[in-house]
Amino acid sequence: MRSAVAQHPPVGTVLESEPSIMSGPPSAMDSRPISCPLCTPDSVATLWSDDHFRLVKVVDPHLPGFVRLISQQHVAEMSDLSATAQRQMFRLLVAIESAMRVNLSPDKVNVASLGNQVPHLHWHIIPRWKDDLYFPDSIWSAPKRSPAASSAVTVVEVERLARAETFWKSVPEICAAIR
Amino acid sequence: MRSAVAQHPPVGTVLESEPSIMSGPPSAMDSRPISCPLCTPDSVATLWSDDHFRLVKVVDPHLPGFVRLISQQHVAEMSDLSATAQRQMFRLLVAIESAMRVNLSPDKVNVASLGNQVPHLHWHIIPRWKDDLYFPDSIWSAPKRSPAASSAVTVVEVERLARAETFWKSVPEICAAIR
Repeated sequence: MRSAVAQHPPVGTVLESEPSIMSGPPSAMDSRPISCPLCTPDSVATLWSDDHFRLVKVVDPHLPGFVRLISQQHVAEMSDLSATAQRQMFRLLVAIESAMRVNLSPDKVNVASLGNQVPHLHWHIIPRWKDDLYFPDSIWSAPKRSPAASSAVTVVEVERLARAETFWKSVPEICAAIR
Repeated sequence: MRSAVAQHPPVGTVLESEPSIMSGPPSAMDSRPISCPLCTPDSVATLWSDDHFRLVKVVDPHLPGFVRLISQQHVAEMSDLSATAQRQMFRLLVAIESAMRVNLSPDKVNVASLGNQVPHLHWHIIPRWKDDLYFPDSIWSAPKRSPAASSAVTVVEVERLARAETFWKSVPEICAAIR
């Protein structure tokens, strides 16, 4: 049973970048690359941040709970970070994955650092379900369901979104405890 | 300029599983899931292994140097591992990425744990180039080049493959030094 609406946005746009960040130019005071959309934090999407990283929610009705962990430093690869920042990053990834599993019970978690389109280190942490639009393929693959079927949000997805809200609320405290 | 041959294998087959492993059933002596293709190591593809992880090369002429880091334990997610194994895993990922960058100078490195098709923890560490078949999309996306163009290996790819051989030879010593 499908209830109204929410067009699924094109994967290439939504899942490899942050659209709301894309729309705002970086500050002229900033020495970071003018063209990098991830060098300007989106305060609305940001769940938590410190000097090294920020966690942002990705509001995709078909992948409720999707988050990205973004380096505050403009580097392309994890091996560009200091050993301290690498350690923190990995602890954050594990803690976020754990909280996602506890709150959302996804069938699988996908964790990926690609950055081919936006070469500023960021990790996608994606809850996956066997009935989601792409499963068992990646979210960057062609959808398994028809575009018509993908244009509405299901009752199951609405329930998951409610749980995603709980996850998003719980995760800042978890991240803040990690050094 | 394109020289002969090597058909590009379907992404879904090659990049989300290990075909040569798929063909061999796991030992009946093993208590691990009979159906899991990653529970039986492929000795030909394995570059290095210890009690926790093994590193295997993925021979794809269009992505020379591609490797996978596979958990020796049949678990689905990184948060299922012990803290000790998690720490080793992350150090391995950084070290492998660094060695890949030094040896291959890719335009980007993609690092991903998906496992939707084979829910046994494994990481893809993929060198990416701006002229590869999928760039700037993921390797799980539809290719950017036509199938006709993708059926031959370019001179540039042959040169990269030679450097990939050097990378594959160097990486076991690097992994062995990490605890």
